[in-house]
Amino acid sequence: MSSASTVPETAPIGVFDSGIGGLTVVRALHTRLPNESIIYFGDTARVPYGTKSAETIVRFAMQDADFLRNRGVKLIVVACHSASSVALPEIVRHFDIPVLGVIEPGARALVAATQNNRVAVIGTRATISSAAYEKAIKALRPDIEILAKPTPLFVPLAEEGWLDGDIAEMVTRRYLSGFIHEGIDALLLGCTHFPLLVPVVNRVLGPSIHLVDSSEETAARAAELLQTRGLLNMQGPARHRYYLSDLTPHFETVGARFLGAPIGEVIRVSIGGAG
Amino acid sequence: MSSASTVPETAPIGVFDSGIGGLTVVRALHTRLPNESIIYFGDTARVPYGTKSAETIVRFAMQDADFLRNRGVKLIVVACHSASSVALPEIVRHFDIPVLGVIEPGARALVAATQNNRVAVIGTRATISSAAYEKAIKALRPDIEILAKPTPLFVPLAEEGWLDGDIAEMVTRRYLSGFIHEGIDALLLGCTHFPLLVPVVNRVLGPSIHLVDSSEETAARAAELLQTRGLLNMQGPARHRYYLSDLTPHFETVGARFLGAPIGEVIRVSIGGAG
Repeated sequence: MSSASTVPETAPIGVFDSGIGGLTVVRALHTRLPNESIIYFGDTARVPYGTKSAETIVRFAMQDADFLRNRGVKLIVVACHSASSVALPEIVRHFDIPVLGVIEPGARALVAATQNNRVAVIGTRATISSAAYEKAIKALRPDIEILAKPTPLFVPLAEEGWLDGDIAEMVTRRYLSGFIHEGIDALLLGCTHFPLLVPVVNRVLGPSIHLVDSSEETAARAAELLQTRGLLNMQGPARHRYYLSDLTPHFETVGARFLGAPIGEVIRVSIGGAG
Repeated sequence: MSSASTVPETAPIGVFDSGIGGLTVVRALHTRLPNESIIYFGDTARVPYGTKSAETIVRFAMQDADFLRNRGVKLIVVACHSASSVALPEIVRHFDIPVLGVIEPGARALVAATQNNRVAVIGTRATISSAAYEKAIKALRPDIEILAKPTPLFVPLAEEGWLDGDIAEMVTRRYLSGFIHEGIDALLLGCTHFPLLVPVVNRVLGPSIHLVDSSEETAARAAELLQTRGLLNMQGPARHRYYLSDLTPHFETVGARFLGAPIGEVIRVSIGGAG
């Protein structure tokens, strides 16, 4: 453990995810904090974390955070819902720099958005099974009613780029139309893949249901946190580095879709038993 | 390396897959060879293999095969398309018992099924990118015309159990209807998840396109191989064991759907960096 006081504000922000979904958080960070350098680590050799046991996820997440810490980051953003659900306390305990997950910022924004105290959360099967969002939301406002539903087909829809059209709409309708009848007024998109589906979800649910995008909220919270701690990089220039534990031909296409821009150089790195 | 001659015909058949899709091969083996005991290993801690590099897949597949060999199996069935595509030669070279992949049996059946020498293959993105089926088919009949297409949404459709209905039909139509106009007369389902979608695929493609199910063909080839080598278990009783490198709550439901029957006892096992 090195001392946090040695990390200058020009140091990069570290972001890790089990795969490439976390690039939607990076995209939101770029927009909000254009001066900040970002180091991204995607554990593509061991993706997905969601189907693995809590014990395994904690072990992998600690290795990921360690990789970033060793590159001198000033903040670790855990842009993976599974890791945020189960490994965040352990990461916070172990490292001497600020650590931010994707669960709490989304939960906070959802609570702020609802007027009738009836909300819903969607995510992968693993995220929903963990009930991490329910716990985070209840901790903020115990009297809220929360519906939670896994929407696993949203992941390959986002990866295929089938973001609009009949199939995206029918899958969205099948998963979400029950929420309209339930009278929710806010829906949390609890997966880093889901920001790409915002237009179709909006179309199906209509304007009276407020969408909360966890990637967007996490970037907002990161900005707030750096400001509070006097760690904002006011001068730039931003320089980004992307590391993956495995490279696949498919990565560039899908990664660019998630990042909203072409990805520059990507470096393969072996960590733990991953590479 | 132990000698093959020491393996009795009462020894179990070993089957491994990156996850639980291989249970469709086990199901086909149960039907065809009811006297045979089966040891299944699903590397659920490292699933999927398809998104990983060839080097990583070979390393994982060798560990999986080793696990089965150490349990005294008489035959190793590589029920994982990614591992069959890239790791089969290495496994065959290393072990002294028969080894069977899922690619060659499917390719052989496809070549036997076509009359007009125009066929198609579907699978995960990784399987299709590997061109493993094209190579296997061309090796059998060089003059054949092969269309190949990744159909990634079929995997979560099978796992969700959305096997029929509008969404399954529209996804199937979007992926496959072009094949009708192309005039193919045989389609290979090159993924262990896909047998569950046979009814909807049949409905979309109509009776004039013959479906070849790689799980079914692999079981048929295993029966043939054991018979030829005098390794058929004529007496039983069959006793099955299921090992996974990680246990998830979701496994039992989806596993039973793939196996076509409830799964009995499942044992978690750590191999390589998996557990």
